Amino acid sequence: MNRPEGKVLVAQGGGPTHVINQSVVGVALAARNFPNVTAVYGALHGVSGIINEDFIDLSRETVHNLNQVAATPSSGLLSTRDKPDREYCEKMFEVMRAHDIRYFFYVGGNDSSDTVRIVSEHAKAANYDMRAIHIPKTIDNDLEENDHCPGFGSAAKFVSQAFAGAGLDNRALGGIYIGVVMGRHAGFLTAAAALAKTYADDGPHLIYLPERAFDQASFLADVKRVYEQHGFCMIAVSEGISDADGTPMISKLMGEVEKDAHGNIQLSGTGALGDLLTKTIKDELNIKRVRADTFGYLQRSFLGAASDTDQHEAREVGEKAVQFAMIEGATEGSVAIRRTAINYAVDYELVPISNVAGKTRHMPAEYINADGNGVTQAFIDYCRPLIGSSPLQSYRFRAPAVPKILG
Amino acid sequence: MNRPEGKVLVAQGGGPTHVINQSVVGVALAARNFPNVTAVYGALHGVSGIINEDFIDLSRETVHNLNQVAATPSSGLLSTRDKPDREYCEKMFEVMRAHDIRYFFYVGGNDSSDTVRIVSEHAKAANYDMRAIHIPKTIDNDLEENDHCPGFGSAAKFVSQAFAGAGLDNRALGGIYIGVVMGRHAGFLTAAAALAKTYADDGPHLIYLPERAFDQASFLADVKRVYEQHGFCMIAVSEGISDADGTPMISKLMGEVEKDAHGNIQLSGTGALGDLLTKTIKDELNIKRVRADTFGYLQRSFLGAASDTDQHEAREVGEKAVQFAMIEGATEGSVAIRRTAINYAVDYELVPISNVAGKTRHMPAEYINADGNGVTQAFIDYCRPLIGSSPLQSYRFRAPAVPKILG
Repeated sequence: MNRPEGKVLVAQGGGPTHVINQSVVGVALAARNFPNVTAVYGALHGVSGIINEDFIDLSRETVHNLNQVAATPSSGLLSTRDKPDREYCEKMFEVMRAHDIRYFFYVGGNDSSDTVRIVSEHAKAANYDMRAIHIPKTIDNDLEENDHCPGFGSAAKFVSQAFAGAGLDNRALGGIYIGVVMGRHAGFLTAAAALAKTYADDGPHLIYLPERAFDQASFLADVKRVYEQHGFCMIAVSEGISDADGTPMISKLMGEVEKDAHGNIQLSGTGALGDLLTKTIKDELNIKRVRADTFGYLQRSFLGAASDTDQHEAREVGEKAVQFAMIEGATEGSVAIRRTAINYAVDYELVPISNVAGKTRHMPAEYINADGNGVTQAFIDYCRPLIGSSPLQSYRFRAPAVPKILG
Repeated sequence: MNRPEGKVLVAQGGGPTHVINQSVVGVALAARNFPNVTAVYGALHGVSGIINEDFIDLSRETVHNLNQVAATPSSGLLSTRDKPDREYCEKMFEVMRAHDIRYFFYVGGNDSSDTVRIVSEHAKAANYDMRAIHIPKTIDNDLEENDHCPGFGSAAKFVSQAFAGAGLDNRALGGIYIGVVMGRHAGFLTAAAALAKTYADDGPHLIYLPERAFDQASFLADVKRVYEQHGFCMIAVSEGISDADGTPMISKLMGEVEKDAHGNIQLSGTGALGDLLTKTIKDELNIKRVRADTFGYLQRSFLGAASDTDQHEAREVGEKAVQFAMIEGATEGSVAIRRTAINYAVDYELVPISNVAGKTRHMPAEYINADGNGVTQAFIDYCRPLIGSSPLQSYRFRAPAVPKILG
């Protein structure tokens, strides 16, 4: 078979995850097995490191250190928010050719897969024999073709641990708790809060996703109902919730603030949506104790929160990418995770890059409840294996009440 | 010795911690060893459960379930923000007498210790033979007499894990990151962010504590200097930072917002300080990527983040409280943790309740650097054992740079 001799290049793009280094290390270790690989380079700061020729030679890493970095969250090769256009991709291709890169592996989301597609086109047009494979990662879990994406399971574990703990806190002191979760277009990560439930009255009691229009009147009615029933209420809200017109609530609420003559104040800090929902509940429902936490960067980087399942799979997508290129002779494509047993096994396929590039997957309808304020058991069954083997169980005293004497 | 027959009552007050249930379980299990104990009651919702006679009979708990609840964060007996006055304490005492409570153990902070003191006074005045012992807990680490407080080590571990991960994230994408940490009067928890450092250029680069006046000009100069040096900057800020007049920055910054005719907008949600510091940096230093996370409730409740050292000590303070009352015949006091080896051993003493009640301990001067924007090695040596045995290490690729070909 045709397996050109040359270098392997691996890079990471977009937002870091807990396990993205696993995929780089999966590529580096797997590529060492092939004698036609003359070196394994890593590009620093993603695509910008490629156009700047900022490469490090991962061939000179020890296995031990590779494994230690793999277990470290965030992008060990550093990242970039650059979104390459055709010209940028052309420049990338020129650098790759100069360094005799014959295998390009890019770990990232849907923008990154589009970059892989364009670079691969340039190689073909130039009749340069190169394999370009996209390796999936995103905490948003919004890549097409994938049962789920590397990075999501660990972020989902963080979100469910956060809600489980905050729920115990909320139960102890009462009131309303809002947790604002990342996910501008897809609600998977916010929905993962549902895994925090142990007992029937545990939160989150209400979950609002970008896939359903957010209606403030229904929201307030929901909160009132739950609060009157329990004396506490846990709410998971996606940062991307939008109204029926598709206007993000964050803009809408800030618009109202501006309408009330609050000027040009930049409420673009991450606490804004939570604080504004808090204010809405206090004003409209007259409930005193209302607290909002915006999970922010912790949900994708917190040291020591990775899902072991996610770690293993992120390693495997890197390994499989190399195998598809070296053994199956694929010239381009995107590695996709397929679930082969609901509870739980997976396998990997190489799918056409155009099936993934620039596309966004949303929560399927069967994972969202009829009222649009919660998730179904089908979602919980889908999500639970992804957070790995760590227990999320919380326990309560079971001691019986003592009869009153004074009354 | 005088060891009256009767019931043991245990309750929890104030903000939950990761390990507060350990102390209740320490009391419950230790008290079972004494045949003069007729039952072990737990009061629900702290002191309010006492005046309402809302007790559960912990004598009927299994050892297994007690241990499971002990490992669960937040207050398993639920909590309260009630701050009892003398009349309230008198009512508590009447209920205790009606139920033949002869041993009262209250797990809480400095307010809770004052409650124990007053209840104990009433018992003495009524010539009612009762022991009242305060058991320490607070994530703020601000109780007098204690080397450190149960609950702090786990919260410190959370804060350091959060900063370690967010630091890797910040390094990958650049810019400024602000983490706002709990602690209105004492800076210990914010200072614990310093444990996140592995490499010399790791953050946090700047730490602002309530013990030092916050000066906005110095703050901006600090941030500018670090950012120009590294291209990124990690900042830990205590929610309680105040200016030279003692005015909390949160009020001051919001005052400025109001002065600019922004009306009565309730910026009391937890994201406000971080968002306003973000705005200040963007406006004054013209740096584009500035992000703030406010750690909020997660830092005291996140499921699965407890320090094992903290768990063991929280269990021990409960056990020791019972031993002081039953074996040493103490009638009142507060259990205090003393460090007997810097790295690391502790022992417990019963100290006069008046040494702790209503008092606040601050960061000693030797733990704060000369510029007031960081901590000393002495603080790191003090704090590191408290976060327990989990590694906080992060790893970097060590691969050498590849020579450029094109340019």
